[in-house]
This record gives sequence, structure tokens and C-alpha cells, in this order.
Amino acid sequence: MDLIWICLISGIIGGGVIGYFILYVLRQSPGTEKIKEVSSAIQEGAMAFIHREYRTEIIVVAVIAIILALVPGLGWKQSVAFIFGAICSLGAGYAGMNMAVRSNSRTVAAAQKSLNQGLRVSFRGGAVMGLSVVSIGIIGLSILYFAWHNDPNFLTIIPAYATGASLVALFARVGGGIFTKGADAGSDLVGKVEAGIPEDDPRNAAVIADWVGDNVGDVCGMGADLFESYVEAIIATMTLSTLAVGIGIITNTQTALFLPMLISAAGIIASVIGSFLVRVGEKPEMSALLGALRRGTLGASILTAIFAFLIVYFLGAGLGFFWAILGGLIAGVLIGESTNYYTSYAFKPTREISEASAIGGGATIVRGFATGLMSTWPPVILVVIAVIVAFKFASFYGVALAAVGMLSTLGVTLATDAYGPVADNAGGIATMVGLPPEVREGTDALDSLGNTTAATGKGFAIGSAITNALGLILSYGVAVGLVTFSGGEIRSAPELSLLSAPVIVGAFIGGLMPAIFIAMTMKSVSVTTALIVDEVRRQWREIPGLREGKARAQYGKCVDICTKTALKEMLAPSIMVIIAPIVVGVILGKYALGGFLIGALITGFIFAVTLNNAGGAWDNAKKWIEAGHFGGKGSDAHKAAVTGDTTGDPMKDTSGPSLNIVLKLMAVVSLLLAPVLTNFPGFLG
Amino acid sequence: MDLIWICLISGIIGGGVIGYFILYVLRQSPGTEKIKEVSSAIQEGAMAFIHREYRTEIIVVAVIAIILALVPGLGWKQSVAFIFGAICSLGAGYAGMNMAVRSNSRTVAAAQKSLNQGLRVSFRGGAVMGLSVVSIGIIGLSILYFAWHNDPNFLTIIPAYATGASLVALFARVGGGIFTKGADAGSDLVGKVEAGIPEDDPRNAAVIADWVGDNVGDVCGMGADLFESYVEAIIATMTLSTLAVGIGIITNTQTALFLPMLISAAGIIASVIGSFLVRVGEKPEMSALLGALRRGTLGASILTAIFAFLIVYFLGAGLGFFWAILGGLIAGVLIGESTNYYTSYAFKPTREISEASAIGGGATIVRGFATGLMSTWPPVILVVIAVIVAFKFASFYGVALAAVGMLSTLGVTLATDAYGPVADNAGGIATMVGLPPEVREGTDALDSLGNTTAATGKGFAIGSAITNALGLILSYGVAVGLVTFSGGEIRSAPELSLLSAPVIVGAFIGGLMPAIFIAMTMKSVSVTTALIVDEVRRQWREIPGLREGKARAQYGKCVDICTKTALKEMLAPSIMVIIAPIVVGVILGKYALGGFLIGALITGFIFAVTLNNAGGAWDNAKKWIEAGHFGGKGSDAHKAAVTGDTTGDPMKDTSGPSLNIVLKLMAVVSLLLAPVLTNFPGFLG
Repeated sequence: MDLIWICLISGIIGGGVIGYFILYVLRQSPGTEKIKEVSSAIQEGAMAFIHREYRTEIIVVAVIAIILALVPGLGWKQSVAFIFGAICSLGAGYAGMNMAVRSNSRTVAAAQKSLNQGLRVSFRGGAVMGLSVVSIGIIGLSILYFAWHNDPNFLTIIPAYATGASLVALFARVGGGIFTKGADAGSDLVGKVEAGIPEDDPRNAAVIADWVGDNVGDVCGMGADLFESYVEAIIATMTLSTLAVGIGIITNTQTALFLPMLISAAGIIASVIGSFLVRVGEKPEMSALLGALRRGTLGASILTAIFAFLIVYFLGAGLGFFWAILGGLIAGVLIGESTNYYTSYAFKPTREISEASAIGGGATIVRGFATGLMSTWPPVILVVIAVIVAFKFASFYGVALAAVGMLSTLGVTLATDAYGPVADNAGGIATMVGLPPEVREGTDALDSLGNTTAATGKGFAIGSAITNALGLILSYGVAVGLVTFSGGEIRSAPELSLLSAPVIVGAFIGGLMPAIFIAMTMKSVSVTTALIVDEVRRQWREIPGLREGKARAQYGKCVDICTKTALKEMLAPSIMVIIAPIVVGVILGKYALGGFLIGALITGFIFAVTLNNAGGAWDNAKKWIEAGHFGGKGSDAHKAAVTGDTTGDPMKDTSGPSLNIVLKLMAVVSLLLAPVLTNFPGFLG
Repeated sequence: MDLIWICLISGIIGGGVIGYFILYVLRQSPGTEKIKEVSSAIQEGAMAFIHREYRTEIIVVAVIAIILALVPGLGWKQSVAFIFGAICSLGAGYAGMNMAVRSNSRTVAAAQKSLNQGLRVSFRGGAVMGLSVVSIGIIGLSILYFAWHNDPNFLTIIPAYATGASLVALFARVGGGIFTKGADAGSDLVGKVEAGIPEDDPRNAAVIADWVGDNVGDVCGMGADLFESYVEAIIATMTLSTLAVGIGIITNTQTALFLPMLISAAGIIASVIGSFLVRVGEKPEMSALLGALRRGTLGASILTAIFAFLIVYFLGAGLGFFWAILGGLIAGVLIGESTNYYTSYAFKPTREISEASAIGGGATIVRGFATGLMSTWPPVILVVIAVIVAFKFASFYGVALAAVGMLSTLGVTLATDAYGPVADNAGGIATMVGLPPEVREGTDALDSLGNTTAATGKGFAIGSAITNALGLILSYGVAVGLVTFSGGEIRSAPELSLLSAPVIVGAFIGGLMPAIFIAMTMKSVSVTTALIVDEVRRQWREIPGLREGKARAQYGKCVDICTKTALKEMLAPSIMVIIAPIVVGVILGKYALGGFLIGALITGFIFAVTLNNAGGAWDNAKKWIEAGHFGGKGSDAHKAAVTGDTTGDPMKDTSGPSLNIVLKLMAVVSLLLAPVLTNFPGFLG
């Protein structure tokens, strides 16, 4: 019972640092009137979208909460926990995005003084998101613990909290992803369609929508995604605590229950310290900037490892748990690095895509797609190694704990990630208001660094989502009685055999889900893009003086189109994903549902990495050509590379990252339904 | 024992019809001197490639045969069966391709008389391949039966025959696929790179290589692929016959052993009848051509269903087996139809890709990729239904039997497929020698029909490969003792639980294999393409008079480059695929290998359908624009569509179809190794 206070206090410390960072950023000058004007247009657009998105989400949350309260086997506590999880996620996303849209203008202003100032403002703006996610996550879980830890059904209540978070994350990622890439591709394409409007030009009516998209997609969506991962990893481990005790790898139930919470608490402290390590000299090189961010994340990782060792030691839990945590932590870091290798133009794979662009658009796509596919091996092998280590030392419980380890430093890794869109926005604003080139150079350096951290962060998000989803699936298996433990051993129901009809059929259907989900979301982006192109073209044609730069484009119209289309388009894929595991569980039974979840995990993992890394590599292959290689900007190779970039955009920023949530959500919905499915054979089961 | 004679006789009848078709085609006029000249250039190129490919294959076959003879648990009989399987596959591929390259010129000449004549010559040319595959397949199996059916290890010997076939198929598909798409893309791109050389123009040095590719890839590769499926489906069912008897769903061992052979024998007779149903009037419409081919395949399907009912009835085997066969048969036909829906420009999905092309290349790719992904649901759901039905009525044995049902009409379905490249070649020759437009119109109609049947055929090839691989995996499970049967019930080893570390880890690694394989083969195509572009460009620059059409291009050089590169590039991915299941089995053990095979099956299925259908849809979206929509040939939309087509080529003709073999090969290698793995726990197992 005392241990819960440690968790709560670490959350509160995180909250204090958030407050400090907020004050720090808000104290900075928001820049000239012109900068403020652009920035507030972005703020308004982002807030308008988020408010409407939240309204839709609240309705869905309310409907599901009512259903949960009525389903036999569940009850009002699940319903309340579900709503609470949704609110915590909404809060974390809102806080992070709200700060991001206020940091962009201040970054521009700060970058006029020095690069170090610019880095500090943008990083601290992003860190608010990172620390909000972990602090709200752990405080929320502590509150749940205080309220209901004496309830014998406590372990079947907390998955509802995760499900609430998951649902919000799904909408945020899908809705935000469709918004951001519809706007981005629309804005990019206009230059081609209606020759003469460059990308960040103020006469392009879609520019503001593009920047709004960065915030609602890359900040808010990413934050909600990782909030979900964070709380789900802890919850999956907690629900497996009975198994850990049952098979005798841990003796004390309280220890098993608190270990994941304490590791996360230690991670918050490590992240806070790490985020203060991010600083550079006044006239830094590009490598120094990267070094500063690396210092922050690596420092936090090393600290967490030390803390984890001490926690395991003082709890007397056995060193095996430490190895499971460390395995997860290291795998997370290395997955991020492998992503960087396959997507940065500093390395061969991306440069080869640039080279292939000289042959034509088809060659660009083929080579980029091949690179994305090839890049799946390091994450898969790293996860496999982490899983083997975790299983060996701590069975199912260890796998879930590895995910906790991987996510423990989220406070600072997410900060380096959320920093990217802030810097990106800052660069856009600098161009739009016509600041001198040296300022733009500074913001460009920050932006380019942001691309690297974004790639690393996305790889990390996938790796943690997969490990995490696996932990949830194992929890599902235990909760629903597919796996039992008695006499110190784990026993599987014979019906769970890999070679039984329900499991195989379930795995086939599960494997199908990511494909259909990607197809739907990619199509949604392409629908939104077409509408934006039409609108920008209409304004160009109909607004007198716009061509000459005398009249102002109606930016709000594009924001509005993106908002409406994104909200409409996000519903079908999201609802499909929520309903699919329920349908499979009810019709084909709990064994088939187990197969379904594993099947989805396998294809989902491969697709998530492929889409993310192919998209990132295409983006940077284009940038490598723009940096003057293979003919440079405007050459045929550049045109081919642009085709690659446009192809990759919805892959890496909409469908790919949303898959993380799809996999976690389907697993956590199954876990939540465990009490219902346990004694229900399924209509065809 | 008497039943084997029925099988042998059906094979001999098939052989007789092959002889008749060969004589029929060879009796036709091979056309003018100019036609003969082009045709023999294609023949020479194809034969040169095949001879060199076969030489490489023979070395690999010899090495593996020696290893098989030495491995404890296997022996010289496995070694001989393996070599025999390889020879049968080589023979079927060789016969089919040899005929195809002789049919193209005769089709041109016949099409000058009438469309019916053209259809008949090209179809009968293709039918030699279809009937060779099934006849040689069943005769080979009959010979094996005669030789060794009294050996108590008979059921562990026959998988070696399938493995030999599988190995040859892998090389044929991968090598042929790299050849054909390297040449095709190279030839297409030249027009863009070196403006002024159209695609089928005689001054383009890569044209002959392109047509050679059609034969070595689409005819020989496809034939070897389906030869493998055909014999493997029968063998998987035969090895499961002991299980069928053991769990009491069938009483007589001989009946269980012969049922798949007899169904296949019946299918050969049905295919022969079906192939005589392919005829049209003298001045037919396009729809009549399609109707003629449909009549052939559907007629054969209905006949097979009737035969199957009679066979099951007279063997007294129980109606359940008939339902399993029928389920497979119907699923195969419907999968083909769904492929047609998603890839033909007669339907909405492909037309939407054409429409998206008006926005740009990126939109083309995004929409086409989304279509490919979406198109996975009908095949997956159809296979799932077939598997559920088969499992319900006849357990594991039923699943393998469903694959036999699906493939039973292969004689005629493969004929409609192999006919495509013949017609395609004919069209090319007609252009090259400058025949009047009305002849070209006729060959174009035949070609366009060939595209439809090729799409249907590829879908069918995937569906049958998946069902078949599943049958093999189940055989592996039984052979290696993961699944036992006693007292009339199937029992799974508890270690085979879906939620055990080895199974999960195996499934992750298995899921990775298709991704890596696709990445490697797509990269190989892009390497070959770049070499071809360079060579054509060099000839254009260096050969005096070539530009003006006075000098002859050195076609042989391009054929040579494709041959060398394809043979070099095919080795790494092929060897990886052969070794991977061995490594997993030996290091992680037999349970992990079970997970590995299922994991590969799930991602492989999704990728195979996606690549195949996205590629087909892009191809036809381009054709739809060329037919005068969205700006027609030469418009920006057309350029975007060409990017889609170039992207799709290696997907649909190299990587996608090769995946079929990868999945089957890994399963059959595992089955072959079962005696070795049974008592070996694996180093980490």
C-alpha cells in the first residue's frame, strides 16, 4: 500500500515539471504581430478540429459506457473506469497539443536569438506532451488503485481504463492522420496541379490546414497512441500478476502488482532528469543538436536501468525480472536506431532510392517499398529476442514487463518526438511571414533534426505497441481461461493448439484486419486530398487578387474541409476495428479470438514497419535529391522522388501509425470482454 | 491396387490429348519468313535461358539429393524421389514452354484467317502446358506408388517427390520472374529515358528479351508453380490418410490413400473434355471469346464435381468428403472471379485508380495499393469458409482434400492461363513485322482476353497455394508428432499452444519471411531493369543506322544480360527460403517451426493477393486510360498510370507469384524433415 504513494508522487513530480516548462515557454516572446497572426490561425484550426473530434468521441464513449454497464459479467465499475481512461487520454492529448501550438511562434522568435534558444523552447514545448502522458497515466492508475483495489474484481476492471484510452487513441490517430495527410498532400499537389503556387506560400489556401494537421496528427495523435501503450503495458502486467504468483516466479502478490507501476514511476523521474540534459552551446553544429537529444533519451534509459535494478533488488523479486525489463528497454532503443538507419539519407538504403529516382517514378516506388519491407527484420528480430528473454526469465508476466521497460522512458522519448512538429511549424511560419534566410536556416536545422527523432520515435512506437499488444493477448489468454496455471505450471487448453480449425481460421481473419484497415484509411486520405486540391484551385480561380498576393486566401475553408472529411472518414475503419474482435469472439469463440489477435499482430507488425519506414525513406530520398544530388530540385529524378514522397505520406502518417492502435485496441477489447467470453462457447465454436 | 490403374490411365489419356494438340499446332502454318525469324529469336532466347537455368538447378538438386541420402532418418529413397520430382517438374515446364514458343508465330498466321483459328491455336498451345502438368504429375505419382507402396515408410518418401518439384518451381518462378520483369520494365522505360523508341518497336533492343520473359516467366514459371501445387495437394492428403483412418472418419486405408488420386484423375478427364469445349464462331465478339474459355473451365468444374460425387459414393467414403472437395472447387473458382473484379477495368476499383491518376503518380500508387489490400478479403474469407467446411466434415484430411478439389481442374484452368503469353507474343510479333492493323486487332482481342484469364489464373494459383500449404502444414504437424490421434480423437501437444513462447516467436519470424523475400526479389528486378536500360541506350548511341531503322539491334545482348542477372539474383532469396525452415527447426525446435509456417502463411497470403491484384489493377488502369479515358494516351494521367504499371510489374509477375512457392516450399521442406525433427528438441527448444 505504501508503494502506491511512490507512484503517485512521481506523477506529481512530473506534473510539477510540466508546470515549469509551460511557464518557461509562455514567458518567451510570441514574436511579431505577423508571426502571432499565423500562429493563432494554426491554434484556432487545431482547436476547432479537436473540439469537434472530441464531441464525436464523447458520443461513442458514452454509448460504449452504457453497453459496458449492461453487459452481464461486466458492470458499472468497468463503465466508470472506461470513461475515466478516455478522459485521461483526452486530457493528455489536449494539454500536449495546446502547448505545441503555442510553442511554434515562440520557437521562431527564440531561433532569431540563437539555435540553443530555439531548441530549448521547441523541446520544452514538446516535453509538455511527453511528461503529460506519463504523469496523467500514472496518476490515473493510482487513483483507480486507491478507489477499487479491495474489489476482488479489480484486475478485470482496470482493462476498461485501458480500453477507454485506446478508443480515444484510435480516433485521434485515424482522424488526425486523415486530416494531416489530406491537407499535406493537397497542399503539395497544388503546386503541380495549379503551377505557380509553391508549398509554403501564403497564397496556397491549404498551408494553414497543413500545419494544423501536424499538430492534430503528429502531436495529439502520437500522444494518445503512446498514452494508450503506456497504461496498457502497466495494466497487462498487473493482470498477469496472479499468474506470476500462481506459477511461483514471484511470492508476493503486492510485489507482482506494483513492479510495473514502480518501474514506470522510476522512468518518470529518469525522463525528467533526461529532459534537463537537452541543451547545446550558443552556436551549435547539427551534430551537437542531435547529440543533445540523444543525451536526453540515452541518459534517461541508463538511469531507468539502474533504478530498475534497485527496485527489483529491494523488492527481492529475483534478477530475472530485471533482465526482462532491460531486454525491453534495449530492444526499444535499438528498434528506434534501426528505423533511423533505413529512413535517414545519411545511410545507403535511402540514397539508393534517390538513385533509383533517376530511372523514374516506378523505380522509386519499387525500391522504396523493397526498403520498407527489408527494414522489418531488425524490429521483428529484436522483439523476438526480447520476448524470448522475457519468457525465459518471467514467463507471460515477463513479456508484459518487457513492454513496461520499453515504455518507461516515454516521458523524454515522446518529448523528442513531439518537438518535431513544433520545429516544423516554426519553419513554415518563418517562411510565411518572410523572415530573413538565416532564421529559416536555424528553424530548418531544428526541423531536419525533428525528422530524425520522428523516425526513431515512430519505430519505437511500433516496437512498444507490438510487445504491449502481445502482453495484452497473453493477459487475454489467462483471463479467458485458454491458459491456466496450477501446481506451479502453465497449462494450455488443447483447443488452443496452433493446428486446430478455430485457431487457424481466427489467425487468417486476424491477419486480414490490418490490410483492410490500411486500405480504408489510405483511401480516406486520397478522398480528402482530392477535395483540398479542388478547393485551393477554386480559390485561386475565384478570389480576385490572390494570384498577385494582394488578397488573402480563405485558409479556414481548407481547415473546415479537412475537419469534416476526417471526422466522417474515421468512423468506418474505427468501428470495424472495435467490432471485429467482438464478432469473432461471439461467433467463432474464444479460441478463434486468440488466433485472430495473433494473426493480426503478425501482419500488423510487418505492415506497420513497412509503411512507416518506406514512407520515411521516400520522404528523405526526396530531401537528398533536393540537397543537390542526382540532378537536384526540379530534375526528373526529383519529380520521381516527389511521387515517392506523396505515396509515403499516408502510409507513414496515417495508416502505419494507426495500426499500432488497431493491434492494441483489439487486444484490450478482447481482454475487457474476457469475463463475458469465458463461459460462452461461441455460436460456431 | 486396381485403383492405381485408373489414375495411370487418366494420365495416359491426358498424354494422348497433349500429343494431339502438339500435332494440331505444329501442322499450322508458322507464317511468313519474317514472322518465323522473330519467333525463332524468341525460341532461341527462351531455350538458352532455360538451359542455363536448368544447369544451375541440376547442381542444386544434386547437392540436396546427396544431403538427403546422408541425413539420418531419411535415406536414398527420399533422395531418388526428390530427383524424380525435380525431373518431372522440369519436364512439364519444358514441354509447355517449348510448345508456347512455337505457338506464337502460328497464332499470328492463324489470326490472319479468323479469330476462331487464332483462339484455337493459341489455346491449344497453352493447353499443352496445362495437360502436361497434370498428366506428368499423376503418372509420376503412380510410378512412385508402383515402386514403393509396400515400403512401410512410403508416406515419408513421397514428400521428397513434392520437395523436388517445389525446388524447381522456386527457381523457375524467381529466375523467370526476374528475367521477365527486368526485360519488360527495361524495355518500357527506354521510351521515357531515350525518347523516340516505342515499346514494341524493332529498334528497341530489349523487345525480344521482353517476349522471351513472357515465356520463361509466365509459361514455364507458372507451370512449375502449379505442378508443385498439384502434386503437393495429393501428397499432403495421402500422408494424412493414416490420420483419417486413425480418427475413424474413413475405414479403409486404401480408400483414404486413393481418394485424392482418383479425384485428380477425374479432373484430368474433365479438363480434357473442357478443353474441347473452347471454340467460338468465325466472327466472334470479345464476350464470345471470354464465354468460350469460361465454358471450358466451368464445364470442367461441373464435371469434376459430378465425378467426385460418384467416386465418393462408390468408394463408400461418406458424403462429408464430397463437401470438402466441393468447397475447395467452388472457393477456387470464386477466388478467380474476385481477382477479376478487383483488377479488370470493367469494374469500379480499377477505374477509380485511373481517375486518381488525374491527380498524380502518388495518388495512383496510393489508390492502387489500397485496392490491392482491400482485395484480400474475398480470397481470405473464401479460404476460411472452405477450411471450416473441410475441417468440419473431414478434419485435417479434409483440408488437404479441399486443396485437391480446388486443383482438380488444373488441366484446363492452366491452359487458359498459359494461353495468355502466347497471344501476347503473337500481338508483339504482328506489330514487329508490320502486319496490317486488322490482324493486330485480332491478336489484341486475344491478348486482352489473356489478361483477364491471367488475372483469374493468378488468383486461383494463390488460393490453391494457400490451401495446399495449409494441408502440408497439417501433414507436418502429424508427421512430427505435434498432433497425435488415438482413440478416435486428435490430440495436440500442449507445447503447440498458440500462447507459448516458441510458437509465438516462430510465428513472428515466419511472418517476416515473405517480407524479406519480396524485398530481395523486387530489388533484383530493379537491378536488372537498370542494366537493360543502360544496354538499350548504349546500342541506340553506338550502332550506326539503328535510329533510322536501317541496322538491326543486338537483341541477343539484352537476352544475355537478363539471363545472367536473373540466374545470379535468384540464388540468394531461393536459398534463404530453403534454409530458413531448417534453421528454425534445428535451433528453435519443431513447435517453433509450426508457428513459423503458420506465421509465414498468414503474411504470405495477404502479400501475395495484395501484390498480385494491385499490380493487375495498375496495369489495367493504364489500359483504361489508353482506351481514351481521363485524357487518354500521352496525358498527365497516363504518365501517372504508367508509374503505377511499372510499380506493379515486379509485384504481380515476380515477387507476388513467387510467394506461392515460398509458402509451399517451406511447408514441404518441413514435412520432409519430420523424421529428423521428431525426436530432436532443438537447441533452444
